[in-house]
Amino acid sequence: MMVRVEMIAHTRDALRVLWTSARTCYSAMAPDTLWEQEPTEEDMLRLIRKIMFSQHFSVIEHATATFAVTGVSRSLLAQYSRHRIGVSLSVQSQRYVSEASGKNGGLFDAVMPPRIQENPEARSRFDAYLRDAQAAYDDLLQAGIPKEDARFVLPNAAATNFVTSVNYRSLLDLYRKRVVTPGAQWEIRELVRSMAALLVEREPWMEEFFPAVSAEA
Amino acid sequence: MMVRVEMIAHTRDALRVLWTSARTCYSAMAPDTLWEQEPTEEDMLRLIRKIMFSQHFSVIEHATATFAVTGVSRSLLAQYSRHRIGVSLSVQSQRYVSEASGKNGGLFDAVMPPRIQENPEARSRFDAYLRDAQAAYDDLLQAGIPKEDARFVLPNAAATNFVTSVNYRSLLDLYRKRVVTPGAQWEIRELVRSMAALLVEREPWMEEFFPAVSAEA
Amino acid sequence: MMVRVEMIAHTRDALRVLWTSARTCYSAMAPDTLWEQEPTEEDMLRLIRKIMFSQHFSVIEHATATFAVTGVSRSLLAQYSRHRIGVSLSVQSQRYVSEASGKNGGLFDAVMPPRIQENPEARSRFDAYLRDAQAAYDDLLQAGIPKEDARFVLPNAAATNFVTSVNYRSLLDLYRKRVVTPGAQWEIRELVRSMAALLVEREPWMEEFFPAVSAEA
Amino acid sequence: MMVRVEMIAHTRDALRVLWTSARTCYSAMAPDTLWEQEPTEEDMLRLIRKIMFSQHFSVIEHATATFAVTGVSRSLLAQYSRHRIGVSLSVQSQRYVSEASGKNGGLFDAVMPPRIQENPEARSRFDAYLRDAQAAYDDLLQAGIPKEDARFVLPNAAATNFVTSVNYRSLLDLYRKRVVTPGAQWEIRELVRSMAALLVEREPWMEEFFPAVSAEA
Repeated sequence: MMVRVEMIAHTRDALRVLWTSARTCYSAMAPDTLWEQEPTEEDMLRLIRKIMFSQHFSVIEHATATFAVTGVSRSLLAQYSRHRIGVSLSVQSQRYVSEASGKNGGLFDAVMPPRIQENPEARSRFDAYLRDAQAAYDDLLQAGIPKEDARFVLPNAAATNFVTSVNYRSLLDLYRKRVVTPGAQWEIRELVRSMAALLVEREPWMEEFFPAVSAEA
Repeated sequence: MMVRVEMIAHTRDALRVLWTSARTCYSAMAPDTLWEQEPTEEDMLRLIRKIMFSQHFSVIEHATATFAVTGVSRSLLAQYSRHRIGVSLSVQSQRYVSEASGKNGGLFDAVMPPRIQENPEARSRFDAYLRDAQAAYDDLLQAGIPKEDARFVLPNAAATNFVTSVNYRSLLDLYRKRVVTPGAQWEIRELVRSMAALLVEREPWMEEFFPAVSAEA
Repeated sequence: MMVRVEMIAHTRDALRVLWTSARTCYSAMAPDTLWEQEPTEEDMLRLIRKIMFSQHFSVIEHATATFAVTGVSRSLLAQYSRHRIGVSLSVQSQRYVSEASGKNGGLFDAVMPPRIQENPEARSRFDAYLRDAQAAYDDLLQAGIPKEDARFVLPNAAATNFVTSVNYRSLLDLYRKRVVTPGAQWEIRELVRSMAALLVEREPWMEEFFPAVSAEA
Repeated sequence: MMVRVEMIAHTRDALRVLWTSARTCYSAMAPDTLWEQEPTEEDMLRLIRKIMFSQHFSVIEHATATFAVTGVSRSLLAQYSRHRIGVSLSVQSQRYVSEASGKNGGLFDAVMPPRIQENPEARSRFDAYLRDAQAAYDDLLQAGIPKEDARFVLPNAAATNFVTSVNYRSLLDLYRKRVVTPGAQWEIRELVRSMAALLVEREPWMEEFFPAVSAEA
């Protein structure tokens, strides 16, 4: 299955919130008065550019976005959950949710790496393996083992879902580490790229702050 | 002056965002499918109550609020800025914003503690002192001292402004430590109480999670 | 395999560091002067008890411990890495370390849940499954799949190692959530219990702050 | 008065702890086995350099240092306490510690900025002001105002003490933001430089990771 990402919440008037926060630092005016002003987008953006250039990143923590993520591997989860600052995470629990065979009329959902997909030999080995993992899981439940222990046979490929909230600062940090960095893995790169793309769709002015990535990155 | 608090941003559909996040943990359904559902408020609230009761607090990090705060003392700021987790803060800088006399046709803005206000002797001493602090600040600027050093004479009473973002979890934590706790100081108690009240005005279902505080607290 | 935990670093004179920090908050004396004093253990402990009772927990962040953890499952890792505050973590990477067959003259290291171990039917199914997982992993490498993708077939049971540092505050928090809480899972309970036991061995006065857990917990 | 900094705790065998943590990520060997090995300092340092070069900074969180800081201004505290990640802080409380005149046979301790010290006119104005602040504080106490409100007249110059713990990662971050950055203020620059110098004295191999700062910075 392919990762599916949807943005379900987002700070309204994000640019104006960030501009108000930035101006508050350097102005004698009250923040609620600043909030009432109606600067042009270009004026606001000019200030945010200065803020970013001077690395005064805490200002952009005031805007956040929440994403519903479906169909990522447990390998990805292990990487994603290492980001501790400004990242909130609610994950589908393998302790509570059964992966027993019946569910989707067959196998548990799983993520197949592209390089396996494109390699017929690897692909059929992988598929056979998933069927065995499912059988082992079912057999353990059958033998009276509780879900929280049966899941020990589920592979990293097993798909999971989560809801995650990030602020703009932590999203830019994720992007730098998981998209721009050459060694980043394909799956988390695809996820974070999608998160950034959804944000830019809603807030096109943010685009310039996500550094361009060359095609082969 | 009195503190003035305004809520300038807030997660839209907060309860539904939290419900979707909570359900994602315990359900086989995809989070974007859950997001499309239309549970009643009572149904959603029932789940959030369970989450809160079992102290699964990370779920409520997905909703946030941003407040514009005007006219608090630097003493309050020292207390508020000690809250490190889930709290973002953009503060008016005394290094950049001048407090020179001309500004408001007089004294820099200051916060006077109620017990000083209600005590005529203390009050007139306090007022006299503020005038001297202003004079000292002006004299230092006059003598060629830069703002960032002249501010060394500004007292804790000097007013400041800030924009702060908190998620629901960190706001509840602030409330417990700065409103409910008997030893909390009057100024930060008033601030956090106002933040909570503004949130409850927008999201009345949140009221039950802010523990009641007896009148004299 | 069984988890193996060793404490490889620990704040020397931890009680005196914490006492100095606590006294600094409430005393006119300089912290380096306080540090030179030689209070009795009982005197120091009396102050720490007050600090803990009034929930002034930030004081105990000044003492830390570092543990070398060997042979825990990837399931445990997923739980442990959700603790974001005051917890540092360096984990053996499945992207870089091969689990190819040759290594230990056989299977990759794995953790078998006690309830599987004690159930002959489940146990033999589990063992057979591990052999198949190893075979699938080896076959994928053979087919030219890189380690970072081949690991998609490794199960949650696969053992991993890590080094983790926690401060006393975060260790107490871990203990409360992963040992004391009834729903905690056996593996992380065993790990955190061992971490606490090693700390108490070195710093016996800490014992009273780890709440007693009844045998069946 | 001048800031006084002392290092009162520090991870023993820090380099070996960091090397063990780094090796754990990329090795099949157990971390307690790695810990027993005796690599040369040059070998260990070579690995840490790689880690730093690839920005795998979480590894160096495993070493920490605790400093006793005496005689810094409340202005500095406001800046220092904005560092939220990997920084623990226990500060002398103006709510609990009296600054009443008798204490040191005179004025409360205060920090005088060098540019005021070197300017005779500013200096005598500053001195006069401090005497007035002390008098105002004493008068308010006399009028029955509690310490926690009387402190509203204490200026930013008022000295405070604290104990702070940082890990190597957060110390390097502090150094970059508060020493290397051109706009950093003299007082926090001096403090963080002293913290770094004390660490380098104990762990000379760390020197190369604190970027050189030109004399006039």
